[in-house]
Amino acid sequence: MTNVAILGFGVVGGGVARLITENMKEVTRLGGDGINIKYILDLRDFPNSPFADRVVHDFDIIASDPEIDTVIEVMGGSHPAYEYTVKALRAGKNVITSNKEVVANFGDEFMAIAEEMGVCYRFEASVGGGIPVLSPIINCVGQNKITEVRGILNGTTNYILTKMFSFGDGFEESLRDAQERGYAERNPDADILGTDACRKIAILGALVTGKLVPTENIHTEGITGIRKQDVEASARVGLKIKLLGRCIIGESGVFIMVAPFMLPDSTPLSTVSGVYNAVEVVGEPIGNVMFYGQGAGAGATASAVVGDLMQIMRSGRNCAQPIMVKSLDGVCDFDDFKAQQYIALGGVGAEQVREVFGNVQIISEGEEIAFITQAMREGDVKKKLGALGAELKSRIRLI
Amino acid sequence: MTNVAILGFGVVGGGVARLITENMKEVTRLGGDGINIKYILDLRDFPNSPFADRVVHDFDIIASDPEIDTVIEVMGGSHPAYEYTVKALRAGKNVITSNKEVVANFGDEFMAIAEEMGVCYRFEASVGGGIPVLSPIINCVGQNKITEVRGILNGTTNYILTKMFSFGDGFEESLRDAQERGYAERNPDADILGTDACRKIAILGALVTGKLVPTENIHTEGITGIRKQDVEASARVGLKIKLLGRCIIGESGVFIMVAPFMLPDSTPLSTVSGVYNAVEVVGEPIGNVMFYGQGAGAGATASAVVGDLMQIMRSGRNCAQPIMVKSLDGVCDFDDFKAQQYIALGGVGAEQVREVFGNVQIISEGEEIAFITQAMREGDVKKKLGALGAELKSRIRLI
Repeated sequence: MTNVAILGFGVVGGGVARLITENMKEVTRLGGDGINIKYILDLRDFPNSPFADRVVHDFDIIASDPEIDTVIEVMGGSHPAYEYTVKALRAGKNVITSNKEVVANFGDEFMAIAEEMGVCYRFEASVGGGIPVLSPIINCVGQNKITEVRGILNGTTNYILTKMFSFGDGFEESLRDAQERGYAERNPDADILGTDACRKIAILGALVTGKLVPTENIHTEGITGIRKQDVEASARVGLKIKLLGRCIIGESGVFIMVAPFMLPDSTPLSTVSGVYNAVEVVGEPIGNVMFYGQGAGAGATASAVVGDLMQIMRSGRNCAQPIMVKSLDGVCDFDDFKAQQYIALGGVGAEQVREVFGNVQIISEGEEIAFITQAMREGDVKKKLGALGAELKSRIRLI
Repeated sequence: MTNVAILGFGVVGGGVARLITENMKEVTRLGGDGINIKYILDLRDFPNSPFADRVVHDFDIIASDPEIDTVIEVMGGSHPAYEYTVKALRAGKNVITSNKEVVANFGDEFMAIAEEMGVCYRFEASVGGGIPVLSPIINCVGQNKITEVRGILNGTTNYILTKMFSFGDGFEESLRDAQERGYAERNPDADILGTDACRKIAILGALVTGKLVPTENIHTEGITGIRKQDVEASARVGLKIKLLGRCIIGESGVFIMVAPFMLPDSTPLSTVSGVYNAVEVVGEPIGNVMFYGQGAGAGATASAVVGDLMQIMRSGRNCAQPIMVKSLDGVCDFDDFKAQQYIALGGVGAEQVREVFGNVQIISEGEEIAFITQAMREGDVKKKLGALGAELKSRIRLI
C-alpha cells in the first residue's frame, strides 16, 4: 500500500481524492500497488466528507510520518506551498503539484533538492490541466532541435477571445459572461493580465531550454487592451487573436513572452476555442506537434496529478528528470524581438503611416487607421511610433 | 557507448540514421550515453552513403553480436520483420519499430517475449508518425475510465478528403493529386481501403483495452465510396467527413472499427486537415484530449523511433509496459453498433423513406434523396435498406 497525503482540500484536492477512490481499479493496476489517502491537510474541517477522518491541520504530522511516500500539494500560491514542499522533499518524500506559481518561482530549487534526496518532484498538472504535455515534452521530443514551444495556456482568456470573435462582443461584456459561467474569478487579474500564462510559459520554457526564466523577466501582456475593432480588423484579414505564451529558441538566443498574437485561421492553435488549452512544439525533424484538451477543472487537473503519482509508483527516479536552472543566460532582450505588427492609430493618415513604417497593408481607414507592417524589431516599432506621435489605439503582433 | 542496428535503410531508416547523427548532442544528453550505429541491414549496398561501411546483408551478424543493445526495425511488412524481431528479442536485445503491420499482427507475441527476456519492445512510430501518442496513452491517462480512443490515423486519406471538401473535387481527381504530390503510393489500396488505419486502431485499442483485436475482426471501410454529392450534403448540414479509427469502450463491450464518419465542424478532429494526423482520447475525469502532428514522413517518424530509443537508454523496463493479449473477449458484433446515419438513395421518395426509417432529416431531394436518420443499430439499418429495396448511393455514419 502506498500512503499519500493531500495538501489542500479545495476543488483540485477533492478531485484527486475522488479520482483515486472512484478509479481504484485503474490506479491500482497502473501503479502496481493500492493507494491510501492517509492525510488531507487543510485549515478547515470537513465533517460531512467521506475523508473527514483523514483531515489534519499540522503539516509536521505528514512530514514526520515515515509511512507517507508521496505528498500531493494542490493548495496553490507560493506560501506555505514552498515551505511544505521543501520540508517534504527533505523528509525523503516525493512531491507532486498542480501549483504553477510555486513551480515557476521555485521549481529549480525543488528539482535540486529532489535530486539530492533521490526522490521525485513532478508537476504535470501545472500546465495545461489534464493534457499530458510536460511528460511527452520531457520523454518524447527532446531528441529534436526544438525551435519553439508555444501555447494557449489560459482557458479564461481563450473563452473571452472566442466570445469576442464569435459574437462580436466587447471585452468587458465577454469577461462578465465568463464570470457568470464560473470560467473567470471575481478578481480576474491573474488571467486577463497574462500572469497565469506567464508562469506556464516559464515552466514550458524551462523544459526545452533547461533555464527557468524568472517571471519578472518575461515580457507579459494580457488581453485587456483588445477592442471590438481589433477583432473585426483581424477577422477581415483571416486572422484570429489568441493570447499565447511563446518560448522561441533561435540562433541569437531565447525569446520568452506572453502576449496576444494574430494568427492565420488555418493554424492548429487558431482552431482551439472556448476554455480549451493547447501546447504546440516545433522542432527538427518532428515538425509541429500539438497537445490539446481541458486546461482546468477539478477532474482534468486531478487526472494529471494522479498520472504523476502512477509514474512515480512505477518508475520513481528511473524516468527522465527535467533540468531546471534559474538563469537569464542567452535570454534575449524583448526589444530585439522581430514580428509583423497590427497597429491601429488615431489622428494620422495612410501617407504619414507609410512615411514612417514603409510598406504596410492598410486594413481600414476612417476615424482610425489600422494596418499591418512588415516584420520589424520591437525597439524599432516603439521608435517609429514615437516619431509618428499619433494616438496608439492598439498594437498586436502577428505570428 | 550504446550500439544499435537499423533494419532497413529506406526512408525511415535513413531518417533515423540522420537524426542520430545530426542531433548527436541532444540524443547523448537525453539518452545519457553516446549512440553508435554499428550495423545497417539492407538487401542493397549504399556505396555513396556516409554509412556505407555499416551495411550488412546477414541478420545473424546483428543477432549474434553481444555489443548490440537495441535493434531498430524499420523495414515494414510482416516478413521477415516478424522473424528478425523474434530473433532479436530472444537474443536479449531491445527492439524498436515503426512497422504498424507487424505490431498489429504480432505485437502480443513480441510483448510476451520481451517480458520473458527482460528487454523492451517499443512502437511509438507505428501510430501517428512523429506525434507522441502511444507513450502518453501508456504513461499519462490510464488512471481514467477511458470510454473511447479515436483518430485520423492516415494522412493520405485525410489529404484526399480535405481536397474534396476545400475544392469540391471528386475522389479520383483528389487521389491523383495526392499521388502527384507523393502523399499516396502508386498502389494506394492500403490507404484508401482503410487497411493502414485498421492496423493503427488495433494498436491503439490494445493500449486502452489490453486486447489486441485481430485486424480481420475489425470492421473496416475506406473512402473509395465517398462522392462529391456526399461532401456537398455534409457541408450543407455543417458536418465534415473524416476517415476515423474508433475503439469505443461501453457498458456492453468494445466496438472497434475504421470507417468514414460525419462530424460537426466544431469538433477538434474535424479541424485536422491535409496530411496531418490526430488521436483523441475520451475518458473520465480527463474529458477529451487530443494529440496532433505529422503522421508520416522520414523526419517525424524518425523522431518517434529515436524517442523510444532515448526512453530505453534511460529507463529500460522501468517504464510502463503495455499489456497486449490477442482476444475477441468482450468485443461486440458490429451489427450492434448504434449511430445516426447519412443515407443517399435513388428511386424512392421522402414518404417511403419516412415509412421505413421513421423520423429523418431530409438534406436534399431530386434525382436522389439524402437524409440523416435517428441513431439506430447497424443490423437494423441493413434490414430497413433491404425492406426499402432502393438503390443505395451512399451511407456514412455520424459521430
